[in-house]
Amino acid sequence: MKKVKEKLDFMYIRIAKVIEQQILNGALRTGDKLPSLRTICREYGVSQNTALSAYYNLESKMLIETKPQSGYYVRYSKTKVPALPQITKPEAEAHYADSELLVRKIYDGLGEDGHLALALGIPANELLPIAKLNKGLTVAMRELKGSGVMYDKIEGNERLRRQIARWSFAMEGHLNHDEIITTGGCLNALSYCMMALTKRGDTVAMESPISFGMLQLAQVLGVKVLELPSDPQHGIDLNALEDALKANKINVCLFISNFSNPLGSCMPDENKKQTVRLLEKYNIPLIENDLNGDIYFGQQRPKSCKTYDESGLVLWCSSVSKTLAPGYRVGWVAPGKFKNEVRRMKLYHSISSTSVTHEVIAWFLETGRYESHLRKLRHTLHGNMLKFSRAISDYFPEGTMATRPRGGFVIWVELPKAIDAVTLYEKCLRYKISFAPGRIFTLQNQYDNCLRLNYGLLWDEKLERDLKLLGELACREL
Amino acid sequence: MKKVKEKLDFMYIRIAKVIEQQILNGALRTGDKLPSLRTICREYGVSQNTALSAYYNLESKMLIETKPQSGYYVRYSKTKVPALPQITKPEAEAHYADSELLVRKIYDGLGEDGHLALALGIPANELLPIAKLNKGLTVAMRELKGSGVMYDKIEGNERLRRQIARWSFAMEGHLNHDEIITTGGCLNALSYCMMALTKRGDTVAMESPISFGMLQLAQVLGVKVLELPSDPQHGIDLNALEDALKANKINVCLFISNFSNPLGSCMPDENKKQTVRLLEKYNIPLIENDLNGDIYFGQQRPKSCKTYDESGLVLWCSSVSKTLAPGYRVGWVAPGKFKNEVRRMKLYHSISSTSVTHEVIAWFLETGRYESHLRKLRHTLHGNMLKFSRAISDYFPEGTMATRPRGGFVIWVELPKAIDAVTLYEKCLRYKISFAPGRIFTLQNQYDNCLRLNYGLLWDEKLERDLKLLGELACREL
Repeated sequence: MKKVKEKLDFMYIRIAKVIEQQILNGALRTGDKLPSLRTICREYGVSQNTALSAYYNLESKMLIETKPQSGYYVRYSKTKVPALPQITKPEAEAHYADSELLVRKIYDGLGEDGHLALALGIPANELLPIAKLNKGLTVAMRELKGSGVMYDKIEGNERLRRQIARWSFAMEGHLNHDEIITTGGCLNALSYCMMALTKRGDTVAMESPISFGMLQLAQVLGVKVLELPSDPQHGIDLNALEDALKANKINVCLFISNFSNPLGSCMPDENKKQTVRLLEKYNIPLIENDLNGDIYFGQQRPKSCKTYDESGLVLWCSSVSKTLAPGYRVGWVAPGKFKNEVRRMKLYHSISSTSVTHEVIAWFLETGRYESHLRKLRHTLHGNMLKFSRAISDYFPEGTMATRPRGGFVIWVELPKAIDAVTLYEKCLRYKISFAPGRIFTLQNQYDNCLRLNYGLLWDEKLERDLKLLGELACREL
Repeated sequence: MKKVKEKLDFMYIRIAKVIEQQILNGALRTGDKLPSLRTICREYGVSQNTALSAYYNLESKMLIETKPQSGYYVRYSKTKVPALPQITKPEAEAHYADSELLVRKIYDGLGEDGHLALALGIPANELLPIAKLNKGLTVAMRELKGSGVMYDKIEGNERLRRQIARWSFAMEGHLNHDEIITTGGCLNALSYCMMALTKRGDTVAMESPISFGMLQLAQVLGVKVLELPSDPQHGIDLNALEDALKANKINVCLFISNFSNPLGSCMPDENKKQTVRLLEKYNIPLIENDLNGDIYFGQQRPKSCKTYDESGLVLWCSSVSKTLAPGYRVGWVAPGKFKNEVRRMKLYHSISSTSVTHEVIAWFLETGRYESHLRKLRHTLHGNMLKFSRAISDYFPEGTMATRPRGGFVIWVELPKAIDAVTLYEKCLRYKISFAPGRIFTLQNQYDNCLRLNYGLLWDEKLERDLKLLGELACREL
């Protein structure tokens, strides 16, 4: 996989990456003049066009800027990036979710147009390959037996499961297709796993802050949530996890291993390995939510906890809802030794997935279209993340902190303590701007000054204006 | 609706219906000579072609036969129809489902080709309007915003909900689109309703025998099942229901009001009304599974219990999985006063339905294609039911009884007591014939000599041979 990727990466992207790296690590600083196009051509042995493309790429990420009749200069400033938030400090007691009013107020308009963009947790329409997916639908109609009007096998579309298995090798997952069960999206996979593994009154450990969808699922299943301290870069605090396991406080873990929602943290591979070993020691299953793993900004897809799973305790869940087609409802789970239990949940609660859309995704993966789409998507999202980071630094109140996600499409912002994000949220609504207040990502009294922004959008002037206005409204709260 | 239907019914169908009625009520008996084509033309004032079509229609149902150079004769004999089974007599105690081995043995091959046809509970591929559905997919790609790659609203596709509401008027349902929530099939709707209304240890009352899918759902949710005595024609015994309600034994009811599975019984409208009044008196909700209601063989769609619901206690569930496209996963529920609870289940367990297939079904209903497809499907299934009835009478052991469903696509057969249907099932497998043994439709020790057959198939010589062989194998068991 890696070799293929290198071959496919265009020269201009490789040049841009080198310079980007120098800017990000501070070797090049704001205002520094960059080599002329001619120098780039000579040094890398490329055409003028390629050199131009490299600079254009960096410009689109707002890392550099052109000054007419002078040349190219570094625009991005490391010192202008908001500081990173501290590791979170939730209480060590598990809680039942009992209120949902705030979440519902914000998300009742899901599917509506308008001002919700920054509050949502899915990429915008414009970033999805709609025409290619339609082509896939046409192919599926023609090739799938009965054009997909009949039920799938219970385990799901075999072609899709083979593709997911093949794909898993990229992260050394070594899965076989018959270890995989397809589902109607990642949430649907997580719901089957939770129903298979928990009973009322159990405790599920999650990172804190937590995707509110997980809190809602816990609520409806009557399980308690133990929030674990989490680092904005490296995710779950392993010491806290071990303490809770020792104290016999956890029945099941549910972690977003890569580019968590809302923090954007990514567990280093070594931490993943340690986590799995720890859970093996205490014989506690891990439901791994890896729905963002394919949206990495680095060189390689981060591994999953499943990669290190030797005892079948990890249930690896993912989907294409965050990268390709949320409305297709295509997800999957590799449930390890809990395969029978999860399969039964699928059979008893819904019989079959939607045959035709699952076939489309199989085709998309098989023909290499997924890989090529992801390259574009990652590039766009990485650029957006840098732009958001810069905008937060430019417009938000002094002392604002923000995460620096290396993947996914959400950024977590900590405003000065004096600002209440829910109050700010209500004021912003009047200006048709929205975001997800931090308070909805926890069951405890915390994150009142935090918010989550979705940068999975098409960057344009209106978006920049909205972020500016949001920042100004926040400043007024002080 | 009724007027429209009459206008649309072709003359030949009306003539055929008159004669069919005379045959079914015994006015015309086996061997009776029918009026000549010339007489039909004169009496009804129709062309020779129309008269021929009427007789062809009756022939295809095996009600009449041609004798060369002699004319048309009645073939079907009322006296040759198997006797009706008695009302069922399950115990009045609720049970937990704990075994599922037999069911799994039979259904693990779901989706495979071959010998499962008679055992399944869905209509065959060949009866579904695949080309028209594909046309719908093409339209949906073009007309649906973002071609359906994005999430639907939580409540589901509005166009579809408006069509379902419109459709509900046919049974005097008077539903408004905003009372409806779409789901991924009828089972998915039932699962949300059950999760919203029951907790572990509750008792759910169902008809007996019961669709095994409901037993599995009850098992996985940890609720007990109270099996109610049921009449093969009229469904639930209302006295038994009232006794159980008086004794405070029921938390929730889950009934298939029209053309139940596996009995094929249909509650008379008066019984539906009484049922709803009774449940109102005891304030017990009814989850109504009406997935077969559109497949009626009579003049009019039977009403639903929902029609009589004044207090919002009825959660009306249905789908197009038994009539149009099982693999599209399109179902819905009108949850009455439990709308918020059911909506929350959908949101927390799966967020959205599959946008594109739901749009196709909306289009199918909107353009009148559903009505026209149903007319054909009902005609085919009615013919098949009569053929199955005749074949059972011809080939099955003396003393065999069978239901006479007036809709749906399953028939329930009671073999002589001495025959064990599971033993017979295993012998039949060697001949690549299958069926659903009665034992899997109950949690009690009963129905050992019963079986369910699916007549939702394309009738051909092979099918007749299979039924003959099945009958012979049954005879050998005596």
